[in-house]
Amino acid sequence: MKVVIVGGGGVRTPQIIKTLYSNKKELSLEEITMLDIDQERLDNIKMINNELISGKDIKLNYTLDAEEAFIEADFILFTIRVGQIDDRIIDENIPLNYGVVGQETTGPGGFAMAMRTIPVMLEYLDLIMKVSPDAWILNLTNPSGLITQALTESGHEKVIGLCDGPTVLKEEIADAMDLNEDELFYEYFGLNHFGWIKRVVHNGIDITENVLNNNQALAETRVDPDFLRQIKMIPNEYLLFYYNNTEAVKNLKDSKMSRGEIIKALNTKLFNELRKINNDDSNKSPLQIYKNYNSARNDSYLQVETMGLQTDNIAEKLWGGINSTGSSDKMQTGYGNIALQVMQLLNSDQAELMLLNVVNNGAINCLDDQDVVEIPVYVDKNGLHPLNIADIPEHARGMLQAVKSYERLTIKAVKDKSYASALQALIIHPLIPDLKAARSILDDYIENHRYFPELK
Amino acid sequence: MKVVIVGGGGVRTPQIIKTLYSNKKELSLEEITMLDIDQERLDNIKMINNELISGKDIKLNYTLDAEEAFIEADFILFTIRVGQIDDRIIDENIPLNYGVVGQETTGPGGFAMAMRTIPVMLEYLDLIMKVSPDAWILNLTNPSGLITQALTESGHEKVIGLCDGPTVLKEEIADAMDLNEDELFYEYFGLNHFGWIKRVVHNGIDITENVLNNNQALAETRVDPDFLRQIKMIPNEYLLFYYNNTEAVKNLKDSKMSRGEIIKALNTKLFNELRKINNDDSNKSPLQIYKNYNSARNDSYLQVETMGLQTDNIAEKLWGGINSTGSSDKMQTGYGNIALQVMQLLNSDQAELMLLNVVNNGAINCLDDQDVVEIPVYVDKNGLHPLNIADIPEHARGMLQAVKSYERLTIKAVKDKSYASALQALIIHPLIPDLKAARSILDDYIENHRYFPELK
Amino acid sequence: MKVVIVGGGGVRTPQIIKTLYSNKKELSLEEITMLDIDQERLDNIKMINNELISGKDIKLNYTLDAEEAFIEADFILFTIRVGQIDDRIIDENIPLNYGVVGQETTGPGGFAMAMRTIPVMLEYLDLIMKVSPDAWILNLTNPSGLITQALTESGHEKVIGLCDGPTVLKEEIADAMDLNEDELFYEYFGLNHFGWIKRVVHNGIDITENVLNNNQALAETRVDPDFLRQIKMIPNEYLLFYYNNTEAVKNLKDSKMSRGEIIKALNTKLFNELRKINNDDSNKSPLQIYKNYNSARNDSYLQVETMGLQTDNIAEKLWGGINSTGSSDKMQTGYGNIALQVMQLLNSDQAELMLLNVVNNGAINCLDDQDVVEIPVYVDKNGLHPLNIADIPEHARGMLQAVKSYERLTIKAVKDKSYASALQALIIHPLIPDLKAARSILDDYIENHRYFPELK
Amino acid sequence: MKVVIVGGGGVRTPQIIKTLYSNKKELSLEEITMLDIDQERLDNIKMINNELISGKDIKLNYTLDAEEAFIEADFILFTIRVGQIDDRIIDENIPLNYGVVGQETTGPGGFAMAMRTIPVMLEYLDLIMKVSPDAWILNLTNPSGLITQALTESGHEKVIGLCDGPTVLKEEIADAMDLNEDELFYEYFGLNHFGWIKRVVHNGIDITENVLNNNQALAETRVDPDFLRQIKMIPNEYLLFYYNNTEAVKNLKDSKMSRGEIIKALNTKLFNELRKINNDDSNKSPLQIYKNYNSARNDSYLQVETMGLQTDNIAEKLWGGINSTGSSDKMQTGYGNIALQVMQLLNSDQAELMLLNVVNNGAINCLDDQDVVEIPVYVDKNGLHPLNIADIPEHARGMLQAVKSYERLTIKAVKDKSYASALQALIIHPLIPDLKAARSILDDYIENHRYFPELK
Ligand SMILES: NC(=O)c1ccc[n+]([C@@H]2O[C@H](COP(=O)([O-])OP(=O)(O)OC[C@H]3O[C@@H](n4cnc5c(N)ncnc54)[C@H](O)[C@@H]3O)[C@@H](O)[C@H]2O)c1
Ligand SMILES: NC(=O)c1ccc[n+]([C@@H]2O[C@H](COP(=O)([O-])OP(=O)(O)OC[C@H]3O[C@@H](n4cnc5c(N)ncnc54)[C@H](O)[C@@H]3O)[C@@H](O)[C@H]2O)c1
Ligand SMILES: NC(=O)c1ccc[n+]([C@@H]2O[C@H](COP(=O)([O-])OP(=O)(O)OC[C@H]3O[C@@H](n4cnc5c(N)ncnc54)[C@H](O)[C@@H]3O)[C@@H](O)[C@H]2O)c1
Ligand SMILES: NC(=O)c1ccc[n+]([C@@H]2O[C@H](COP(=O)([O-])OP(=O)(O)OC[C@H]3O[C@@H](n4cnc5c(N)ncnc54)[C@H](O)[C@@H]3O)[C@@H](O)[C@H]2O)c1
Repeated sequence: MKVVIVGGGGVRTPQIIKTLYSNKKELSLEEITMLDIDQERLDNIKMINNELISGKDIKLNYTLDAEEAFIEADFILFTIRVGQIDDRIIDENIPLNYGVVGQETTGPGGFAMAMRTIPVMLEYLDLIMKVSPDAWILNLTNPSGLITQALTESGHEKVIGLCDGPTVLKEEIADAMDLNEDELFYEYFGLNHFGWIKRVVHNGIDITENVLNNNQALAETRVDPDFLRQIKMIPNEYLLFYYNNTEAVKNLKDSKMSRGEIIKALNTKLFNELRKINNDDSNKSPLQIYKNYNSARNDSYLQVETMGLQTDNIAEKLWGGINSTGSSDKMQTGYGNIALQVMQLLNSDQAELMLLNVVNNGAINCLDDQDVVEIPVYVDKNGLHPLNIADIPEHARGMLQAVKSYERLTIKAVKDKSYASALQALIIHPLIPDLKAARSILDDYIENHRYFPELK
Repeated sequence: MKVVIVGGGGVRTPQIIKTLYSNKKELSLEEITMLDIDQERLDNIKMINNELISGKDIKLNYTLDAEEAFIEADFILFTIRVGQIDDRIIDENIPLNYGVVGQETTGPGGFAMAMRTIPVMLEYLDLIMKVSPDAWILNLTNPSGLITQALTESGHEKVIGLCDGPTVLKEEIADAMDLNEDELFYEYFGLNHFGWIKRVVHNGIDITENVLNNNQALAETRVDPDFLRQIKMIPNEYLLFYYNNTEAVKNLKDSKMSRGEIIKALNTKLFNELRKINNDDSNKSPLQIYKNYNSARNDSYLQVETMGLQTDNIAEKLWGGINSTGSSDKMQTGYGNIALQVMQLLNSDQAELMLLNVVNNGAINCLDDQDVVEIPVYVDKNGLHPLNIADIPEHARGMLQAVKSYERLTIKAVKDKSYASALQALIIHPLIPDLKAARSILDDYIENHRYFPELK
Repeated sequence: MKVVIVGGGGVRTPQIIKTLYSNKKELSLEEITMLDIDQERLDNIKMINNELISGKDIKLNYTLDAEEAFIEADFILFTIRVGQIDDRIIDENIPLNYGVVGQETTGPGGFAMAMRTIPVMLEYLDLIMKVSPDAWILNLTNPSGLITQALTESGHEKVIGLCDGPTVLKEEIADAMDLNEDELFYEYFGLNHFGWIKRVVHNGIDITENVLNNNQALAETRVDPDFLRQIKMIPNEYLLFYYNNTEAVKNLKDSKMSRGEIIKALNTKLFNELRKINNDDSNKSPLQIYKNYNSARNDSYLQVETMGLQTDNIAEKLWGGINSTGSSDKMQTGYGNIALQVMQLLNSDQAELMLLNVVNNGAINCLDDQDVVEIPVYVDKNGLHPLNIADIPEHARGMLQAVKSYERLTIKAVKDKSYASALQALIIHPLIPDLKAARSILDDYIENHRYFPELK
Repeated sequence: MKVVIVGGGGVRTPQIIKTLYSNKKELSLEEITMLDIDQERLDNIKMINNELISGKDIKLNYTLDAEEAFIEADFILFTIRVGQIDDRIIDENIPLNYGVVGQETTGPGGFAMAMRTIPVMLEYLDLIMKVSPDAWILNLTNPSGLITQALTESGHEKVIGLCDGPTVLKEEIADAMDLNEDELFYEYFGLNHFGWIKRVVHNGIDITENVLNNNQALAETRVDPDFLRQIKMIPNEYLLFYYNNTEAVKNLKDSKMSRGEIIKALNTKLFNELRKINNDDSNKSPLQIYKNYNSARNDSYLQVETMGLQTDNIAEKLWGGINSTGSSDKMQTGYGNIALQVMQLLNSDQAELMLLNVVNNGAINCLDDQDVVEIPVYVDKNGLHPLNIADIPEHARGMLQAVKSYERLTIKAVKDKSYASALQALIIHPLIPDLKAARSILDDYIENHRYFPELK
């Protein structure tokens, strides 16, 4: 099997490589190709990968040539960041100027990211349709559901949107309840970064009530547990930006750095350290540097949004803290595992329910057939078999419909290069208070972004 | 024909009386009964009515006994204000404390009004079903669509929700375009105080573009005309609170008085002056006092929300200004006319398209069958025949669905006496930023309102 | 205004001409162009028309050139018969060989007619889109609803399918009830030749029950009135072929001539007589001949299907009978009036509810948006405004869905030139008992028809 | 675990007992209670059971007392025949008099069976809701889907309709293709005895085309394979009565005995032989007698409908033939296995896709939410998780909708005791040609059936 990682110069590539490599047999893995547009990043990642995988049993390629990469691919993972981390910083900072959440995937930040990412993805899609039409596309690029819909609407069927959020949520609930995750069934439904668990069943017994009464099980949502008991659902952690909007905006503004800026600092330090090895010919371990980087990144996750982390010289500080905790085994977690699991199930005799972003086709009746939704999908070697979702609670229904309208208009804005559609996408987004904010944010994005499509 | 006005002691009753009386023949009008819970108000309104209608050709009754009033009624108009103007002031002021729009019908204000009005309406409905099951119910009580849905969901079919907003909007567009209103067809759709015109046709020619290019025609919306050209629709004036949310909140807060407080001041002056006549046996004209009142009220409409009117001793000031303009003929406008038109069409050989609040039943496909919607209805002596609405623009779709979800949950909150439903209604309302605001507003309403249903 | 009649050599053209001419002022009628493919027919019809219209106030043209005809047309009426009456005879006879209803529009007969008519219509449509894209297309060609859907699916919006059936049904009910038709409202819904009245309202009072209890009012349906009281609806007369299927088939088979053969005989006599005048230079009146023809045709309508009319030398017999009854004023009735009424309403200040075939767009929720349905439409100078149809009774729902599936597959069969789709269309038709019958009928049609599209 | 078999005196009970007993460990089986209304049948079945199960490790009870039976039940299997085999004979014979299919579950036969079975089932349901509300109800009683819908519409959620048909179809395809059934995925959808496979996937490869080209794989459907290649689907074997309607009716009529009569003959012989043992105190084996019975029954399955089996003294003949083939191991097949599999999956760590009758809830979008449909359901210890069904082919859509309309009206007829609904159910059934046939059949049923509900 040949796997391609588009955005292979990205900081998570070694994690993915490690995950795939550990399962090389089940996958009959022969070759992994890293495709990127940045040669230096590829070189740096290669150093880490090479330390990670000593054997020669699988081929690792690094290339800037997409066509070459896609040929004979079985799975193509997309994990790109158009405009790099600098553009994410713009995505996140502009809305904050207008009192609106500035976040990578949720609200205007996700909109801007989608606007400059979709055109790139569609170009790749064309190439894949030509070169490897039977390859599965696993999209990890954020905003994952929206980007996936842009691809499926263009007629390719073998696209799956991945996100580890819902799976992590499941794990956390299982942990808190001290139950074996495998024994639980979750009725999860919604959109990427915008879903809820509406029922948890354990060995045939509905334990939703028990979960809701266990504050520990609800902790990761960071939303008032009393409220969750009132809606009788457990939301995806990104619902925080809706339920605790004002506080989240305040924390983001109070914080001296945005999440993007922290990651930029960490990335800079990572690549500097790696460059030093190269230049100094030092015998430091690229892998150890990478592990430090990862722990630093994990330790600071969602701190800004919830606690208003005040920081300066942040990279050094976070980096320091890690050597002590030595969280090197955290390397395997994350979305690499989700991708791995999909590939395994499509290639073995096992079958599992996974939470994936797939074309709706009526699974959630109150959304359109061609919408991409995040729901339980029964995956086996015969493909994806989405479950039917019944009885969407009223609380979620209107919100889902409004946010999906925003997503549809965003895709339309890219496809038609339409300023009017872009503006409408923003105005109907529940996190944007009004026309003035919507227009200001849009105009600022247009002014500041290099890769924004030219709108008319 | 017998007409009943529930809330007949209200300040608009003389307007309605005048309107009905001018058309007494077409209506075969024999009797109008004013039903209220406040005897003093009934007495005062009677003074005005008596000056208005000198002849004895129709019977005017005033009563506190609902059963008596409803017997043999053909049309029952509801125009009540549960908790009087004092409760409206609470409705409007509390949200402003949390930076949220405080308005009689839109946002939390409308929610609170519905919460205490629906139980009263449902009690009346029970009585009507017993005493006069064939009577038409014309609901003018705000929030008109939401209240109407609470009634229709209870199984009564002959309920129509009325609002003069969409009709006024039509007239204004016709005026601005210098066209005969009768020659125009408007594709208007939505919910009460939450709708759009998506197409205007003149003698078979689609003139939507022309209307959108005429800033005068768009003026009443108070929304940026460039934006309206981008969405290609003309919104109901209440969309102002969505599109210009921040500014509206600011104006409301900056204003020293809320709309409710202004009306309270005007009402107090009106009833004081009327009381004086009674007591002093003066020979002032109750009708003239009433006309002054009306002009003062009209002149100050929507001033607060849009211009931050700063005022004190307001009643005197507004009162003074009127004698000069002498806008006595304004008396006939307003929602009385809409009610009149419905009654006429149901009793004559004419037929017209009217914009009414009726049960959806699939007319707008993206909403539920039992939802009440505001759409064009062909009305003739054989009843209401709602038009089918095709192709709801994406811009409106998600918003409509979200706001209707809020409405459904509000009704559910009343019917189940459920705090959880009430809270969810508020959270999913697009004008409420988050859980904290929703809960604070709800709790403050519960604490401050006398007529709020007890929630559990 | 310029009106084009495609199929202008047809036997009903003089009726239409007369109808239009009597209303020339309201219509601002300037020109009527008869377009056909048969010059002799045009010549014959011209003789009748010329006697009918002596004045020179409007221009009558006769042409074989479609492009010329369509230029500057305001309304284009389609009333063609592809393959002439001979092909109708084939349409009707073949199914009878397999015990299946053989009828011009219902069942396999309608299928075959659609198969050879749709390609012709689509070609004309292309030309119209090029030459006169703003012209209204009024389709009278049968099967009217199915043909109309083939046109609207091709993207032209200004297409209306006409049939006088539902209007005649209304008139008959009004007559039987001794009520003024204008005072009645009918909730009629369905497909062309496949609809029901589910509610009749008179001056606001639901009189459905009364109508159902009046056997006279139900007489035209020819269906057992007790059954109609059980379904609480009054069906279109073509439902006869469903409700009384076996008997209808028996009558058709017992009859020595099919409807098509009778008409062929009448047509032959008509054109012979007209030819004689030409040749003999006799001074017989073409118009009188035409009137005789018409009465003979009307007198024999639906006789075959319901009474098993046994006849030979039929043209002579029917012809004879007429001179006595002298039903010359019957000339104005029929579908010409429906076309006239549409043209008038689209060009005047009047507005009416008409029963028309239009794109569904959600009016009947259990059918697809792009389906053409026959429903009440409010027509005024601003266009067509279809009413919303609520609560389709279960009895009708499944039947409607099945028959519409048949219609969709028929259109698909033409567009894809697909034998498989054609076969499936026939199999799911409720009047065709099984695969064997479906296939035999299809294969016989293919073998016998000259204008059937070549299927693969 | 306690299992109850309602209709436990039925001829298939020993099969079910054997199946359950062989899996007693996985099921933690402690007790099986046979509930019936016929003591003699219970006694006879007990004789067979006792020979089948020598051990004392599980308790077998036999009772006429429903309340006693249901107490503490975990699973309640329904497999009753209201009116016994005599009423089935009536069900099947009457339609044949009018040229309509007479079959136990399909067409009027299924209708009549439902009419007299639903009231009995609803009474049992009430009792279960009172006594054992948490028990799973597995309904095997025919017509299985229709009966199941009558139960689920009454508000009980834990009802599953079972039929081995779709599973047998899968096995036959796998056999014919020489593939391992476990490696195949089938997109099966529809209603009970009215469904299609629209896609077959093998190890990720769509092999639908291959299956369709393998006549052996299509053989069991008895439908012309060329036609199946045209619709690109493989129908449930009961579609035979639709696709080959005329031939099926002819075979049924030509046959001297109906299926019901054959079974009656066999049952009589079975119970006679068993009675003899009892009376004569002979030492014949009840189990051997039972095995003979079973083989005789299996050997004659669907012979009548397809080959017009002419027979007399049938029981003896069939009985004789069996000793030779000795098909004793056929005992385990059939619907007992489906019931077993459901119980196992709900009680173990395994999970499988099964084809079950469950509430639709949007899984098939063109049917109503509350309809019961037969679709793939992912079953594990946490319950039933129906897959979403996308893209119903047009060929199947209209037919499904029409047949489901018939089913809904049948249930309505029982619930409202309505003659009109019953008549409408029959008329819209695709297998009934017209009103006359429908009414005759209905009236004959009413006249001949003892257990038919009294209609008004
Ligand atoms: N779905 C999930 O669960 C999940 C979790 C984390 C991150 N992500 C997403 O993964 C993506 C990568 O984020 P990261 O922080 O891991 O990586 P990163 O920012 O370190 O790397 C992204 C890589 O993409 C490359 N790139 C940019 N434009 C490209 C193009 N046109 N073609 C090919 N490569 C291109 C860059 O050069 C860079 O090497 C982002 O979209 C992020 O939001 C998704
Ligand atoms: N739909 C529209 O177009 C429209 C326009 C304007 C006002 N309104 C609505 O009409 C209603 C009346 O407003 P207003 O300012 O004209 O009148 P108001 O406030 O002067 O009068 C309301 C009357 O209702 C009476 N009332 C209160 N509770 C009652 C009860 N339980 N039973 C009977 N009477 C009761 C009061 O005593 C008072 O006399 C409000 O709901 C308002 O929002 C609707
Ligand atoms: N909708 C209704 O209420 C209604 C009522 C009656 C008849 N019809 C339909 O009207 C149509 C005409 O029937 P009729 O019996 O009145 O007419 P007819 O058969 O006398 O005339 C049809 C004419 O169409 C012409 N024609 C055939 N192919 C043509 C082509 N490709 N282009 C132009 N002309 C062509 C023929 O030459 C002929 O002159 C039929 O489809 C019939 O079913 C509809
Ligand atoms: N779903 C499937 O796959 C499938 C397959 C075969 C048979 N069936 C169905 O199973 C049922 C039984 O058929 P059979 O031929 O196996 O059995 P059968 O006819 O031998 O036995 C039915 C039993 O039900 C009993 N009974 C009748 N009325 C009853 C009542 N009110 N309460 C309790 N018991 C009652 C009878 O006394 C009899 O013992 C039928 O409905 C048949 O159609 C279903």
